Amino acid sequence: MAQALRPRPVPRVLLLSLLAVACWFLLRPLLDPAPPLPALHASLGLSILALLGALYLVPSLGPAFVHANLKGRDLLKTYDDPIPESLGLVCAALYILLLILFIPFAFSDFLNGQRNAAKKPREGLVINEFPHHQLSLYLSSLLSLLMATMLGFLDDVFDIRWRHKLPIPIIASIPLLMVYYSERGATDVVVPIPLRWLLGSLLNLGPLYYVYMSLLSTFCTNSINILAGINGSEVGQALVIALSVILNDLLYLPWPIGFRIPLHLLGRGREVDFGGVWSAGMAYGSAVLVERHLFSLYFMLPLVGVCAGFMYHNWYPARVFPGDTLCYVTGMAFAVVGIQAHFSKTLLLFFLPQIFNFVLSCPQLFGLVPCPRHRVPRFDAETGLLYPSTASFKEHAPSRLATVVLRVLAAPRFVRLTADPKTSEIAETTNLTILNAFLLRFGPMREDSLVKVLIATQVAGSVFAFVVRYGLAGLVYDGNRR
Amino acid sequence: MAQALRPRPVPRVLLLSLLAVACWFLLRPLLDPAPPLPALHASLGLSILALLGALYLVPSLGPAFVHANLKGRDLLKTYDDPIPESLGLVCAALYILLLILFIPFAFSDFLNGQRNAAKKPREGLVINEFPHHQLSLYLSSLLSLLMATMLGFLDDVFDIRWRHKLPIPIIASIPLLMVYYSERGATDVVVPIPLRWLLGSLLNLGPLYYVYMSLLSTFCTNSINILAGINGSEVGQALVIALSVILNDLLYLPWPIGFRIPLHLLGRGREVDFGGVWSAGMAYGSAVLVERHLFSLYFMLPLVGVCAGFMYHNWYPARVFPGDTLCYVTGMAFAVVGIQAHFSKTLLLFFLPQIFNFVLSCPQLFGLVPCPRHRVPRFDAETGLLYPSTASFKEHAPSRLATVVLRVLAAPRFVRLTADPKTSEIAETTNLTILNAFLLRFGPMREDSLVKVLIATQVAGSVFAFVVRYGLAGLVYDGNRR
Repeated sequence: MAQALRPRPVPRVLLLSLLAVACWFLLRPLLDPAPPLPALHASLGLSILALLGALYLVPSLGPAFVHANLKGRDLLKTYDDPIPESLGLVCAALYILLLILFIPFAFSDFLNGQRNAAKKPREGLVINEFPHHQLSLYLSSLLSLLMATMLGFLDDVFDIRWRHKLPIPIIASIPLLMVYYSERGATDVVVPIPLRWLLGSLLNLGPLYYVYMSLLSTFCTNSINILAGINGSEVGQALVIALSVILNDLLYLPWPIGFRIPLHLLGRGREVDFGGVWSAGMAYGSAVLVERHLFSLYFMLPLVGVCAGFMYHNWYPARVFPGDTLCYVTGMAFAVVGIQAHFSKTLLLFFLPQIFNFVLSCPQLFGLVPCPRHRVPRFDAETGLLYPSTASFKEHAPSRLATVVLRVLAAPRFVRLTADPKTSEIAETTNLTILNAFLLRFGPMREDSLVKVLIATQVAGSVFAFVVRYGLAGLVYDGNRR
Repeated sequence: MAQALRPRPVPRVLLLSLLAVACWFLLRPLLDPAPPLPALHASLGLSILALLGALYLVPSLGPAFVHANLKGRDLLKTYDDPIPESLGLVCAALYILLLILFIPFAFSDFLNGQRNAAKKPREGLVINEFPHHQLSLYLSSLLSLLMATMLGFLDDVFDIRWRHKLPIPIIASIPLLMVYYSERGATDVVVPIPLRWLLGSLLNLGPLYYVYMSLLSTFCTNSINILAGINGSEVGQALVIALSVILNDLLYLPWPIGFRIPLHLLGRGREVDFGGVWSAGMAYGSAVLVERHLFSLYFMLPLVGVCAGFMYHNWYPARVFPGDTLCYVTGMAFAVVGIQAHFSKTLLLFFLPQIFNFVLSCPQLFGLVPCPRHRVPRFDAETGLLYPSTASFKEHAPSRLATVVLRVLAAPRFVRLTADPKTSEIAETTNLTILNAFLLRFGPMREDSLVKVLIATQVAGSVFAFVVRYGLAGLVYDGNRR
């Protein structure tokens, strides 16, 4: 069945029309009058190029990957064709290259519109975009992304063992940490109101802050990497998280319109007004907050571009696989914006499904429950449906702790246990992943339905995250600065 | 003959003693009184770690490379054992990681000794090491090095065709160019005295300067890559060039001693005095020149470390091969210091053997003369000696241009031609490389003798370069600033 190998066609009209739009966005900052945020226009243009690049490069480079032995069988299909693996490398390379080409738009005086700043003072808050010293933060972020790409690709080539690759993202975060230290970045966190009697309102974490930053990189990277295995799952998660971050960033931009979030409808007796002429949204006129969220946008917009383009080819039935490279680079991109733009707690709220999956996986990851090589759902060729996959206690009976943990997880139907008829001990459990939990909850389903359920869950998680962030955070934090 | 696969042993006493020395150099900047150039101490310490890392990591990671199908046969040996290929990746990764770890030493106020600057004013020129804005130049250099590593490794994995990979270093130089542009780097060059009547004393090249910079990266990278093929050749060249650059940099440092170069012995009637208490050597008190050459030293010292460590294992008979990765990363490192520290013309003087080899190779590279897949000398298993390899005009007779070019090259015995006895046209020529030219000049020799000849030539080229730079440059340039 050679159909799986034939690349999904991309309509040519898309290329031409999108290319024209991208060029317009790239040229617009050069025209008078310059837009208020010229670099954002350029970023949008580059993001469209990212989309186009991924749409066209991924299928055309696929054969080279198969040739270089970077290929895999799709475990959840009836056919055996080799599918090009590690195509996330193409996405990562394209993404980083576009971010590098973006440097003059964001940081040079000529291109980012400051040539006009002296001539025409504008109404309201003046956005000088990045202060110049932010260039080193930007470059250190690029270094971390490139290292994550490199390490992800090495992982794909050398097939590093699971336990060995857990700390790899820490290495990739070293450039971030080094530059953060050299630039004397702040290492204090705002203390939640209920704890202030003990810790004061600002707590300086000192060296612990660096530990926190590298753990954040590790978590963002690995949590996407272990929620994987079905067509479109890795890139689907990344896409929803990136869009959520973008939506959050947009709240802090100086929109020329006023709007308000009607939080009183939630019964909180409080509304959040924002917007107004250049009042910089939720940033309440703080230029620093605007800069931070622009920084975040510049990283997230092209990421959405490459992810969307890649998803087109990775969607069920997948023509290409992402490899670990895609998980590494997207995870590191999220960590980078969370750290550099100082919204790591909000970022973690967008990772709710990943946190759930990680916590659920812990008994298998840390050896309490046997962990087979693949934990993806089991494909039944006759029905064409996916069923929960299982891990069995063949070697030895489950420990008392494992039994307790599994029984607790079985209560809300996160796992299904099979008892040994003789000893009545647990003989088998479904693998501890969110994908298997979905199959237990909603019954066997096709692979494309399962990935849709996953994406819907991710979206629901983000909606919940926004409610928590802007609805409930006021209970434990004052102001809206974090 | 499994002997070739057994890694060359590294004496344990070396590890322990060098580790102690490295720690001392890393700790010294923290002790009072701080040394005048604290970051240079740290750089020396990291360079020793680079040496140790390469000595130990290269042999221990070799099997993983063989396992991942990154291996090759040594064409110039009697045995067929697979030799791990692309181990330059280990060197490059180590090198870049150490350069990243160096950031706080060079750029943070606490570690680079400025904490003492206010307390005790020192005699003579005050070196504040890097101005803070140089951090972005440093980071862009790291980005270019990392991209060169990535692209070199992709080249090794995907085996990119020769003509396609020529422009690859241009991509790796993009971060350099972008940041140079954003930082509004100077784009003018000093005009040699004989041309000043026409061009003035400073010529602004504008966009052409960026073309020059990317061509320099391309040349440095590819010229090392094509002078390759025998054990130790790639890393040997890189080592000599790096040491030459270091020697040149040392001339510009503020030595606490006075010395002079007796140029009057060369009959030039002029001496160059330099040194003196903090008079900053050839920099004549220019803090900018000192900073630039420190920048260069920080990149070159660890490079010497990794190259020396790698050479130990790559020396005849080689236990590991460098792959394209090593050539890419060393070439890019030279381009980076040449560009960022503004001594690209001096740098090119250290590339004389590479320039000769490149010019000699041109007829084959550009299709005038047939170019076989490998141009390395031919190994004769009976005598154990290397003989010049040949390319024959089988397909069609040489064009008139090719005949003229080859006859010109044959006059100084750079090539040896074989005439067709019937037509008296050229039927065969030795391959147009400096290695074959050596074999023609000095007769067949063993592989280790040939690499020694190559290294000796490189050293002689550097001696000549210093004579030209500090003896003859005064004829066409005034001052010693370039």
